[in-house]
Amino acid sequence: MNEREFSKKTIEILREVRKRQPLVHHITNFVVMNSTANVTLAIGASPIMAHAHEEMEAMSAFTSVLNLNIGTLTPYWIDSMIMAGKAARKRGIPIVLDPVGSGATPLRTDAVKKILTEVPVTVIRGNASEVMSLFTADEEIKIRGVDSLESVDAVRYGAHRLAGELKKVIAVTGSVDFVTDGDRAVEVHNGDSMFSLVTGTGCAATTAISCFCAVESDPLVATAAALGYYGLAGEEAAKASNGPGSFQVALYDALYTLSEETMMDKLRIKPVYP
Amino acid sequence: MNEREFSKKTIEILREVRKRQPLVHHITNFVVMNSTANVTLAIGASPIMAHAHEEMEAMSAFTSVLNLNIGTLTPYWIDSMIMAGKAARKRGIPIVLDPVGSGATPLRTDAVKKILTEVPVTVIRGNASEVMSLFTADEEIKIRGVDSLESVDAVRYGAHRLAGELKKVIAVTGSVDFVTDGDRAVEVHNGDSMFSLVTGTGCAATTAISCFCAVESDPLVATAAALGYYGLAGEEAAKASNGPGSFQVALYDALYTLSEETMMDKLRIKPVYP
Amino acid sequence: MNEREFSKKTIEILREVRKRQPLVHHITNFVVMNSTANVTLAIGASPIMAHAHEEMEAMSAFTSVLNLNIGTLTPYWIDSMIMAGKAARKRGIPIVLDPVGSGATPLRTDAVKKILTEVPVTVIRGNASEVMSLFTADEEIKIRGVDSLESVDAVRYGAHRLAGELKKVIAVTGSVDFVTDGDRAVEVHNGDSMFSLVTGTGCAATTAISCFCAVESDPLVATAAALGYYGLAGEEAAKASNGPGSFQVALYDALYTLSEETMMDKLRIKPVYP
Repeated sequence: MNEREFSKKTIEILREVRKRQPLVHHITNFVVMNSTANVTLAIGASPIMAHAHEEMEAMSAFTSVLNLNIGTLTPYWIDSMIMAGKAARKRGIPIVLDPVGSGATPLRTDAVKKILTEVPVTVIRGNASEVMSLFTADEEIKIRGVDSLESVDAVRYGAHRLAGELKKVIAVTGSVDFVTDGDRAVEVHNGDSMFSLVTGTGCAATTAISCFCAVESDPLVATAAALGYYGLAGEEAAKASNGPGSFQVALYDALYTLSEETMMDKLRIKPVYP
Repeated sequence: MNEREFSKKTIEILREVRKRQPLVHHITNFVVMNSTANVTLAIGASPIMAHAHEEMEAMSAFTSVLNLNIGTLTPYWIDSMIMAGKAARKRGIPIVLDPVGSGATPLRTDAVKKILTEVPVTVIRGNASEVMSLFTADEEIKIRGVDSLESVDAVRYGAHRLAGELKKVIAVTGSVDFVTDGDRAVEVHNGDSMFSLVTGTGCAATTAISCFCAVESDPLVATAAALGYYGLAGEEAAKASNGPGSFQVALYDALYTLSEETMMDKLRIKPVYP
Repeated sequence: MNEREFSKKTIEILREVRKRQPLVHHITNFVVMNSTANVTLAIGASPIMAHAHEEMEAMSAFTSVLNLNIGTLTPYWIDSMIMAGKAARKRGIPIVLDPVGSGATPLRTDAVKKILTEVPVTVIRGNASEVMSLFTADEEIKIRGVDSLESVDAVRYGAHRLAGELKKVIAVTGSVDFVTDGDRAVEVHNGDSMFSLVTGTGCAATTAISCFCAVESDPLVATAAALGYYGLAGEEAAKASNGPGSFQVALYDALYTLSEETMMDKLRIKPVYP
């Protein structure tokens, strides 16, 4: 798929989300529950936030994707995620993981490892340091051994290897996003620096990926398309705003109103490998 | 009361809320704690969000209404609601229940039944499927037996019967809201489709009902008036907005600034029975 | 420091926050997690919201200030605060406490007393009734004995005495804020009545204090400067808004965009003692 085909595909996926309005089950952190629910609605899907152990199995019966996010984590919530993940596995629905703060504390790093061991995660989206925390010591040494690589390249190299080993899609987001499944790799050049001034915009990028994975069976394509669309909405929002408050408001508006013409014109999703 | 009298009454209740600034105790879900607190303030009342078992009794001593909402429920929170409900009963203050997602999982359906058994709920507000989950199997059969009824009419018929049996007010909200206490029934024609694009707007409608119940002793009147006022604020907000982000901002502004002239002119609260 | 010097100092502290981007660890209530995270970012610092007992020690290793807030409190969260407070003490980082609702229920009043006994709190910010709940019965009698004082003066008198006894900074916020460390006292005349129409604006004032304490070693100066800057941002936001929804949006924008010229011109931080 070339860049133009990726733009077309993104438009198709978004149409499909709006047609099917899939239910997106979030087990996520307290900071972003409201904002990611609003992003889900602006995209055209339906959010359900639920974490009680008693309903993790029942909830999976009518949801189309499971979105896991480890911010404001406690052991109870790790168990919720694993229960919901196992139920999702039975039903064969995709699982998207946001390893917020992985690497910062052992609780978080270990929680991510436990989730990855017990739950068939489809896509992981994190920033560079969160993704690096997933590498084993052995892999880190190998990556550091590639002396000629810049640090950004080192993270990408590691993510690409790890995605291949784990058979998952890994998205490393930053000024340019990098999405890999170990075979293919795509760069997403949409986005805006204003995102860093609003809390939960990374978590909401993961939500966008979940919405797209609910209707698109190729998770690499769904992930790259979601990041392009979400990033472009941010670009449009930045033009319409005077600071972080009005940016967030304009972001919800742009996710809802972004035209197909603008998407054809301004999406920058670039396959880089093969 | 005719439509015009309902408009006048709505204005009077809102004035009274702003004069008394009643404390509205919410035990509500994580997604909407911030937005329903802001709606409470925009209406002119004061929100208190608290759920610790240790303070449920103490909290009731200075609050004017109890708002229960079962989104993001766990067993601890059900117990909080029952403790607070029993304290509210002792003090004779109204209790308003939002059965979010009742019918979707046994945890939620059972929680609502437990609350209704142990706590003297005054008003229940839900969408059609949430209200239908309150019907017993026996009632559902009777309702389905009325073959000539459209599905909307069937829900209304069931809600009217159930309200009479339970001696409560039931509000079924949708494109037209239906409020019944088993004797009287009222339709509210205010509202806007933009509400469905913002999370927690149903929960906030329940908050509006709670604010009005804090100062108006007839809960059917308080409920219909609150839904009219809240729906009209949404209509005004929709005119001032470009999408779901700016709609939510404009909704808070409209709740705060809606003039009595606009209310007299545009409220559409229509008694339909008797 | 005179008023003009305070304006200059406020500008310097804000520059330093933006240069260092300190990590502000919040253990705060569910209502304001999102809004205080956004205020932290708009000011130029970085928020971390975390409360799991397992990571309270680890989290303190890379944070610059600890922000404690007792809204939506349960015993688990009190323990989180004490664990994090003890870790902060070991590392010598400042601790800022917002005693939300202290005085309203024994759970809250006792929690504040427990925290103050076990954790070396640097700054306490509350409204008049919250601060008064910190006075012992003995002190209250003494304060009430000063018959000639107005009630506002009585609270200030009590706060000044208590700050001296506890060797902490106490900020009593209201239409004019009063900041004291028992030796020095400062009034902050910036602010706007719109703040009272948005939930969590008091909690966010405490967040502003935390951000400033992260880079300024004199906590009285940091607290007064933060309240001046935050209050002035509210004044500017009020001019740009039509109600509480647009006020909150404009507040985030103003915190981010407030110019040094406007600060030199309009900050009203007035030393009153000595």
